Amino acid sequence: MNELGAQPLDGEPAARVLVAGASGFTGGLAAQIVWRHPRLRLAAITSRSDAGTRLDSLYPRYRVPLELTALDLDRVEGIDAAIVAYPHGAAAPTVAALRERDILVVDLSADFRLRDMDTYERWYGEHGAPQLFGKGVYGLTEMYREQLREAKLVATPGCYPTASVLALAPLAERGLIADVVVVAMQGTSGYGRSSDDSVHFTAMTENAFPYKTEGHRHRPEIEQELAALGSPAPVAFVPHLLPLDQGELASCFAKTTEPVSKDQVQALYRERYAGEPFVTVLDGPPNLRAVRETNECHVYVTVEEHGRVTSFAAIDNIWKGASSQGVQNLNLMLGLDETAGLL
Amino acid sequence: MNELGAQPLDGEPAARVLVAGASGFTGGLAAQIVWRHPRLRLAAITSRSDAGTRLDSLYPRYRVPLELTALDLDRVEGIDAAIVAYPHGAAAPTVAALRERDILVVDLSADFRLRDMDTYERWYGEHGAPQLFGKGVYGLTEMYREQLREAKLVATPGCYPTASVLALAPLAERGLIADVVVVAMQGTSGYGRSSDDSVHFTAMTENAFPYKTEGHRHRPEIEQELAALGSPAPVAFVPHLLPLDQGELASCFAKTTEPVSKDQVQALYRERYAGEPFVTVLDGPPNLRAVRETNECHVYVTVEEHGRVTSFAAIDNIWKGASSQGVQNLNLMLGLDETAGLL
Amino acid sequence: MNELGAQPLDGEPAARVLVAGASGFTGGLAAQIVWRHPRLRLAAITSRSDAGTRLDSLYPRYRVPLELTALDLDRVEGIDAAIVAYPHGAAAPTVAALRERDILVVDLSADFRLRDMDTYERWYGEHGAPQLFGKGVYGLTEMYREQLREAKLVATPGCYPTASVLALAPLAERGLIADVVVVAMQGTSGYGRSSDDSVHFTAMTENAFPYKTEGHRHRPEIEQELAALGSPAPVAFVPHLLPLDQGELASCFAKTTEPVSKDQVQALYRERYAGEPFVTVLDGPPNLRAVRETNECHVYVTVEEHGRVTSFAAIDNIWKGASSQGVQNLNLMLGLDETAGLL
Amino acid sequence: MNELGAQPLDGEPAARVLVAGASGFTGGLAAQIVWRHPRLRLAAITSRSDAGTRLDSLYPRYRVPLELTALDLDRVEGIDAAIVAYPHGAAAPTVAALRERDILVVDLSADFRLRDMDTYERWYGEHGAPQLFGKGVYGLTEMYREQLREAKLVATPGCYPTASVLALAPLAERGLIADVVVVAMQGTSGYGRSSDDSVHFTAMTENAFPYKTEGHRHRPEIEQELAALGSPAPVAFVPHLLPLDQGELASCFAKTTEPVSKDQVQALYRERYAGEPFVTVLDGPPNLRAVRETNECHVYVTVEEHGRVTSFAAIDNIWKGASSQGVQNLNLMLGLDETAGLL
Repeated sequence: MNELGAQPLDGEPAARVLVAGASGFTGGLAAQIVWRHPRLRLAAITSRSDAGTRLDSLYPRYRVPLELTALDLDRVEGIDAAIVAYPHGAAAPTVAALRERDILVVDLSADFRLRDMDTYERWYGEHGAPQLFGKGVYGLTEMYREQLREAKLVATPGCYPTASVLALAPLAERGLIADVVVVAMQGTSGYGRSSDDSVHFTAMTENAFPYKTEGHRHRPEIEQELAALGSPAPVAFVPHLLPLDQGELASCFAKTTEPVSKDQVQALYRERYAGEPFVTVLDGPPNLRAVRETNECHVYVTVEEHGRVTSFAAIDNIWKGASSQGVQNLNLMLGLDETAGLL
Repeated sequence: MNELGAQPLDGEPAARVLVAGASGFTGGLAAQIVWRHPRLRLAAITSRSDAGTRLDSLYPRYRVPLELTALDLDRVEGIDAAIVAYPHGAAAPTVAALRERDILVVDLSADFRLRDMDTYERWYGEHGAPQLFGKGVYGLTEMYREQLREAKLVATPGCYPTASVLALAPLAERGLIADVVVVAMQGTSGYGRSSDDSVHFTAMTENAFPYKTEGHRHRPEIEQELAALGSPAPVAFVPHLLPLDQGELASCFAKTTEPVSKDQVQALYRERYAGEPFVTVLDGPPNLRAVRETNECHVYVTVEEHGRVTSFAAIDNIWKGASSQGVQNLNLMLGLDETAGLL
Repeated sequence: MNELGAQPLDGEPAARVLVAGASGFTGGLAAQIVWRHPRLRLAAITSRSDAGTRLDSLYPRYRVPLELTALDLDRVEGIDAAIVAYPHGAAAPTVAALRERDILVVDLSADFRLRDMDTYERWYGEHGAPQLFGKGVYGLTEMYREQLREAKLVATPGCYPTASVLALAPLAERGLIADVVVVAMQGTSGYGRSSDDSVHFTAMTENAFPYKTEGHRHRPEIEQELAALGSPAPVAFVPHLLPLDQGELASCFAKTTEPVSKDQVQALYRERYAGEPFVTVLDGPPNLRAVRETNECHVYVTVEEHGRVTSFAAIDNIWKGASSQGVQNLNLMLGLDETAGLL
Repeated sequence: MNELGAQPLDGEPAARVLVAGASGFTGGLAAQIVWRHPRLRLAAITSRSDAGTRLDSLYPRYRVPLELTALDLDRVEGIDAAIVAYPHGAAAPTVAALRERDILVVDLSADFRLRDMDTYERWYGEHGAPQLFGKGVYGLTEMYREQLREAKLVATPGCYPTASVLALAPLAERGLIADVVVVAMQGTSGYGRSSDDSVHFTAMTENAFPYKTEGHRHRPEIEQELAALGSPAPVAFVPHLLPLDQGELASCFAKTTEPVSKDQVQALYRERYAGEPFVTVLDGPPNLRAVRETNECHVYVTVEEHGRVTSFAAIDNIWKGASSQGVQNLNLMLGLDETAGLL
């Protein structure tokens, strides 16, 4: 049975896409989004641990009737683009091999996000493809849209940086951030599929806690991007785990380099994000259900009573925080409508 | 059947206790804690809305086989102490009437927490017993223990101030806080029993959100207490609602008036809370399950990479954040062991 | 701005659709499914209680940028079909008025499900349009597909009957059911939007309970349909509420009129449901996450150790149990592909 | 520091108690209940996997400040009684060794529950201490109270049999059960501490499913006990996992050997359980929150419309379904008040 035939395509595909690492939470979701995409053909899905399993038995809701296979880089043929959903470290060599075959790559790992090798090595260890380090485009679509249209390798941002930078970008671009506290919260899908005691349902229900309180590797990534936008400010960052599966909230408290009023900052945000198909500036605080299983980012900004700018962004951590943002970028790389397959 | 006879007392009661407003979440819990207390007799439980109902039909787990009655202030006899679990505004006149009858009062409302009438009126409206305003002792036990032993009227702190001030007190007492961001999170019991769309299970499961982002009335209470301890610092405060029932976390980020190292601040906290029966300084981040349905506060303090002191406190919002802290204070007022009925 | 222009249609719409009662859980979802449907135009959405509100402010995830209006039956123009999501009783007169205007109607209420007026009146009270009673086609698509192609009025089954009858139909059609116990479980979206104490998050988290233990009005509906299929058997039915939002499970235990083996009954189910686009017969027990937010029904059948046939069906209670099944039927009524807009 | 000194005992302990396997969910809870028990001294807690860890670091809420040690059967001294919380198979040899040292044993495993060796071997494999098989008293307190007073070895029932038999016992004792369907539901603590994909929070939230649909080993245990009480009836039994941590519901549908009315059966249940300290017969359906973290069993019985007796029992699966029922029995074995330490 040619199950691929069931994929609901509008005419000729714009690209044949490989999803590598499709048995994890973000890879499985990327495969589904490509499967339902009207212009992309899901050509292959691979997994080291679950080769031989059909994806719709691993993730029944996704309804992708394809079998996971082991990735054989010597036999990758007829692939135009790849989404790589490997852990950091493991991703880089595979990304390099795919690029050698001239395949467009959207990498969901941390391997190409940072621009300073010392910082990378401090947080992630030795890099697996140093010749490519710094060669990717940072895939926060709303900030790097034009470069993404020309990109061959895209480093999809971490989920926390996606929410945090979208919550702060309009300020950062004006050089307004003097310092900022970012408190982030995320559901358990952020832990990945591997189970341990801390994500046992019995441990997590009716629970919540901060973690990585001495330093999380997404902090330097957030600082890098705020600086790139115009605000080289120190970021205090602490993530929290919440008893829900998908969803992420960044609550940000910024001291500004000059006073701004609530009206000014709300106007600034509305202007900056006007026309953005996936960022909505709300009239009040965002909530996680409103963005669940969408590529949306909901943003709210205000000024608290002592004058600190307080901004909030809500996303789905494995959609806009990973897989659907990856497809948003792939759309740009392929010259497709940025929203294709994502509404 | 004299059901009161079933209360498991050790000898003569030290006091006969009325719980007024026992049909709400905090009043019902206060009734249970008094019921199980080895030295207190639960003499009466009252409720306007649920008079005639037995408390164990409203809250079966609490197993208090008493009937709620309407409070008749003209016929309060043989009562030594009262825990008042009314909404703010409604509490003050009842508290005043009970005090006129020389009954010790632990008030769980906001009516006697603040010390500045303008601030009270701004956040809560007209006060219902101005003659008593400022006459109560603030019931954060760990900070006001000696005054509480002599108190006739105790204002139990708000849940957010309890966690926030315990997270920051050792710094505040040394005058170390220059400014501080407090991000607080709480379960849905903090909303009280009245239902509305926002706490429908379908709205709240897999959800989380900030609220009162333009200002919450617990902020001035936190500032009042930090100032009283020695640090009159501006506080940025935003609460969040989480998909769990009981539990509250305060995550605090303080700029200090002078540099402090992680070792110094951890030593400071351990020293300050040594001997406290209900505050435990942990070696790592706290979590909500560990304090669920206890009078415990779990605290952790560290220094993040840019030098901001980061501290966390976890409590059960209706236990240490309300009812059990009320009984902790009542124990002191009556000259009992502070931990009686709370372990 | 003509926001309707944003609806992603493939060419000319096959029908202009009104969703009446679109502010409730099932009406709101029906509006979203029609909005995303490639061949239907969402012409109007109405609500008594929320007129003037945009649907995407009520249900942000659904992203339907239309305003709810009050339904004015005298000014319904250019509407080809309506999905009516009213409570029972209120639905019948509106359905009748729409039918008088020759508008195709998919009714999501109970008003046209039963075929015996005495039974209707016992469970639901007086009927609001007796002239139409018994004139609708029962919208369990898999059982009445051919009649649905010709139908002008479709009564979408209750959520419990949908799961229960799909779990039992292959047996019922062969006259094999002697008697059957159906234990059903459902999430809190089944309670509808109106809040009361029992669905407060604090009451429902970490909770589960049976309800309507003396008789639920879906029992006679299940018995009616099993009889119609060939097994006029007594049904014992008890529903349970679970701490989740969307999802429904029917666990059925049937004594058969003649012995059947596990192999026989599994073959019977596979054969019966082969080719059904939305019913999948599994190799093991179904689970609710696998069908969440889909029109899918997952079925499993086996024989327990004393010979009782045990079958299970999992659906999403507001999708296949209401709104998406309504659209599945509307597709048939309009001569469209049954799966249009539902994959 | 002699931390044991902190245990809040009333006078001389009635027994020095060992909890073996105290790092698991039921063993940890048993240790806590013994720790808070006014007449038992918690003399030692052991664990193979977590020796060297303090119990209050593993389960902070339980506040038991003792270190887990490896059990050394050659050096068990000064122990009067043991609660053994091992997996089946592993429990039997340890139980035998403890009995050889004349230590009273409450076994929480399945090793001594069944009375027929063939049945044991079919469901559990080879027995680890056949010489003791059949020598224990079945620890369903409400059914075997008098034998338990004399018992030296008690087999605590499985969680499902506890709820199911309590839901059915008044019928069974009168020989009224002809056949019965038992649908049981349980939270994830029933899975034990070992994590796998199926109890990952992300897999379990918003989920529910039946399991062991071809046969669960608690079914023969339920049949054994119903027969012992007077109704040797076939039981159809299917368990379900729910998205909550602690709690268990048994929903039972019995055909009776003779007709019984709702009034009759409700009177029968009230009479049977009058005076039982931990069984409450309700006027309506039970719910899990009402019994959470108690030794209570809430029961309701009615007759559904076709005459089947329908009964429900709710317990906390690791309290009355395991650890607290174990202590209830230990109280009887030691001649203490049955409710000591359990109210």
